[in-house]
Amino acid sequence: MAKNKNEEFVTQIASRTENFPQWYTDVIRKTEMVDYSGVPGCMVIRPYGYRVWELMQQQLDARFKETGHENAYFPLFIPESLLKKEAEHVEGFAPEAAWVTMGGEEVLQERLAVRPTSETIICSMYSKWVESYKDLPLLMNQWCNVVRWEKSTRPFLRTSEFLWQEGHTAHETAEEAQKETMQQLNTYRDFMENVLAIPVICGRKSEKEKFAGAYATFTLEAMMQDGKALQMGTSHNLGDHFAKAYDIQYQSKEGKLEYCYTTSWGVSTRMIGGMIMVHGDDRGLVMPPRVAPIQVIVLPIAAHKPGVLEKAAELRDQLKLAGFRAQMDDSDHSPGWKFNQWEMKGVPVRLEVGPRDIENNQVVAVRRDTLEKLVIPMDSLAERLTALLDEIHVSMFNKALAIRESKTVDAETYEELKQGVQNGFVRANWCGCTDCELEIKAETGATTRCMPLEGSEIEEGAVCVHCGKPAKTRIYFAKAY
Amino acid sequence: MAKNKNEEFVTQIASRTENFPQWYTDVIRKTEMVDYSGVPGCMVIRPYGYRVWELMQQQLDARFKETGHENAYFPLFIPESLLKKEAEHVEGFAPEAAWVTMGGEEVLQERLAVRPTSETIICSMYSKWVESYKDLPLLMNQWCNVVRWEKSTRPFLRTSEFLWQEGHTAHETAEEAQKETMQQLNTYRDFMENVLAIPVICGRKSEKEKFAGAYATFTLEAMMQDGKALQMGTSHNLGDHFAKAYDIQYQSKEGKLEYCYTTSWGVSTRMIGGMIMVHGDDRGLVMPPRVAPIQVIVLPIAAHKPGVLEKAAELRDQLKLAGFRAQMDDSDHSPGWKFNQWEMKGVPVRLEVGPRDIENNQVVAVRRDTLEKLVIPMDSLAERLTALLDEIHVSMFNKALAIRESKTVDAETYEELKQGVQNGFVRANWCGCTDCELEIKAETGATTRCMPLEGSEIEEGAVCVHCGKPAKTRIYFAKAY
Repeated sequence: MAKNKNEEFVTQIASRTENFPQWYTDVIRKTEMVDYSGVPGCMVIRPYGYRVWELMQQQLDARFKETGHENAYFPLFIPESLLKKEAEHVEGFAPEAAWVTMGGEEVLQERLAVRPTSETIICSMYSKWVESYKDLPLLMNQWCNVVRWEKSTRPFLRTSEFLWQEGHTAHETAEEAQKETMQQLNTYRDFMENVLAIPVICGRKSEKEKFAGAYATFTLEAMMQDGKALQMGTSHNLGDHFAKAYDIQYQSKEGKLEYCYTTSWGVSTRMIGGMIMVHGDDRGLVMPPRVAPIQVIVLPIAAHKPGVLEKAAELRDQLKLAGFRAQMDDSDHSPGWKFNQWEMKGVPVRLEVGPRDIENNQVVAVRRDTLEKLVIPMDSLAERLTALLDEIHVSMFNKALAIRESKTVDAETYEELKQGVQNGFVRANWCGCTDCELEIKAETGATTRCMPLEGSEIEEGAVCVHCGKPAKTRIYFAKAY
Repeated sequence: MAKNKNEEFVTQIASRTENFPQWYTDVIRKTEMVDYSGVPGCMVIRPYGYRVWELMQQQLDARFKETGHENAYFPLFIPESLLKKEAEHVEGFAPEAAWVTMGGEEVLQERLAVRPTSETIICSMYSKWVESYKDLPLLMNQWCNVVRWEKSTRPFLRTSEFLWQEGHTAHETAEEAQKETMQQLNTYRDFMENVLAIPVICGRKSEKEKFAGAYATFTLEAMMQDGKALQMGTSHNLGDHFAKAYDIQYQSKEGKLEYCYTTSWGVSTRMIGGMIMVHGDDRGLVMPPRVAPIQVIVLPIAAHKPGVLEKAAELRDQLKLAGFRAQMDDSDHSPGWKFNQWEMKGVPVRLEVGPRDIENNQVVAVRRDTLEKLVIPMDSLAERLTALLDEIHVSMFNKALAIRESKTVDAETYEELKQGVQNGFVRANWCGCTDCELEIKAETGATTRCMPLEGSEIEEGAVCVHCGKPAKTRIYFAKAY
């Protein structure tokens, strides 16, 4: 009976290896992470998905505040004239803006874009707030929704509306702006590796792939299990482009009027999609312990036997008190159903408590990532669980890293590149020309992902993998979400 | 010098008694709580204002979760056809909706309202999620931005875009929905009184003043220092109105298909405006300690003297470690300037540390609410501060309550009502007719605020204060924001 239920359950999810996109859709819906709404391109984030976002927010927000950033809130609407002040920026974002043209019954004199990102409105305020070098640096962040009108959408990965944070800072010098850009990139890297258990390649985007209006864009790229890349976050050095367009000037110590240098950086609910596609398996989600809404699920076994339910509840309460996100499932489903349910939900550790365990003063722990069983004495449960969750984190990170490494190749020839991007990431020499980039994309479906911070140097005489002209850099190519 | 600075500073704020609206505007801008944006009707919440919102959010969110509510996120956009399904609701909200009519270059087939509130979209999802009584109750909340197109705006109090939370629940029975409505009303009351130090009158709205589409709306009304009312929050029993319009049905234990009963409840950044107008004085803000971004400001006095700066920094660090939101101001402004600055910012306690204090192993504490000075031995500082902040909270609450009581009258005659609403709240008997309500509003500018949960009973033979017909209830009248 339990066996049948098991099987029935697992077959509800498409095979990860046979149909990765369908597997993704099955997993996010069946685990109640997300649902489709009747609104074009917009998703509903259900409590089990939103809780992950809250845990991400808490841990990122603490990191931002530690480095002196403060949260603020800027308007949702951006007048068209304001959007237009930075030429490259408007070119990048206007085509995908949602436009408010009516307020109540009234046609607006100027249409308003629903913010696709907030450089324009924030820089226009910074222009009011910055007068002297004493006002600098300005270090702000906002948590909000943004809208980019998308034709083809997929929950978490690409939707018309999504949730994110966007940091915006203004500095005295170009050097300080670059330092901030890299500091925030490193904050993201730390978060992705040490919280989400996702290895990322940090590097600089090509001119074509950089943020509209930026001087330089730095990115964090992760490999999904199907070998495709997902851009997990970006940190932009905006140079003085926006300061000049929005007139952010300050009086220097020497009494001269100077333009500021600004940065912006953001990560979004897209990371949730990345987390699912990096760690999930054929049984469903595998949640990294540090953002798992439930870290430990306690299952009473033979719950009708005297004392079992009480002991399980007692354990759950102890674990909650000790700071674990713990729950008990005392529903009247079969154990087999419950095993499947909580495996599908990706809960890192399942604790089974039955009459024999109680007799032996122990519990049986099952790791979600490896399905390995461990017997843990009750007296050292909290201590062992802390270590176990850390161990699961490390093991998940290493597994993801191993997959990435196994699917990354160095291509000497264009043929090798074409083959490599069918399977994963390709490192190759590149001439730096947008034309080459576009041709490679047209021919292979792969885009440049980044010039890695470590390892983008080329050897003397190196030539572009595509055109054969002298190479300028080593760069990653991959198909991407 | 310090004296002059003092005076210069205080005169930057209009007198609270002579021009309350100007005082409000001066205070919120000069303290950098908020700024006007170039976007029609939209405000920028600056870090000092946003921090208050974050502290409010944390404390409310914990209360919601304790009572089993989970956070989720629903789309910003609501298709017009969806908005129209509940007749009263669309009538109430469509006239003030902002409409998105274009996505990118494309004119949309159906225009989308930027959510003014989310009953419609959330109920349409509940209709998919609820099948059986086992799925009930559904207890969700979302923190988000909403837009109501306003002609005349004032930061925090009424803006086209604002931030809020909206709880939405679905239940098996009318009784459970009513119980939830009152539970959330009481959660808000507890928060407003015990966190914001604002006394509120809880009661039911008249038919005219209730939420568009609700069965009954319950409200929390606070008195501002100018005697006007501010609706601080509402909790709606929506009956089966939305369940019928959006088809939220469940199979009961008996196997019958039944409609759910739903509720919704919300509070917004408007509460920040209320907090300012209830507690502020001619020197600026007076922050209630439990949401003050800075609870204690440490000022080194004669900071050039050896050991002073170090001791002040040490105290600040100790206080932070002990869990206080503490900062030190070691800028090179004069002490007088600093006193004014931090008084204007409403920091509950100022600690002065000078050479003589250090010698005597003490600090001088100055309460913001009363400006009273206290000498506190350094060794018992944390302990005394905890008690002092609690004392300030209680004292602020009592002061606000005393003001409200002194400005509330019982009117036997219409003449008394007319006089009373010039100054504050009026309790009077009312026939329950909307016509009477409308006439009173036209003649006096006052609206019905609520039928209080306690004290709305009438004596036998009581007549309406306006029309003289038999009265149905006692009700509060006031001018309102």
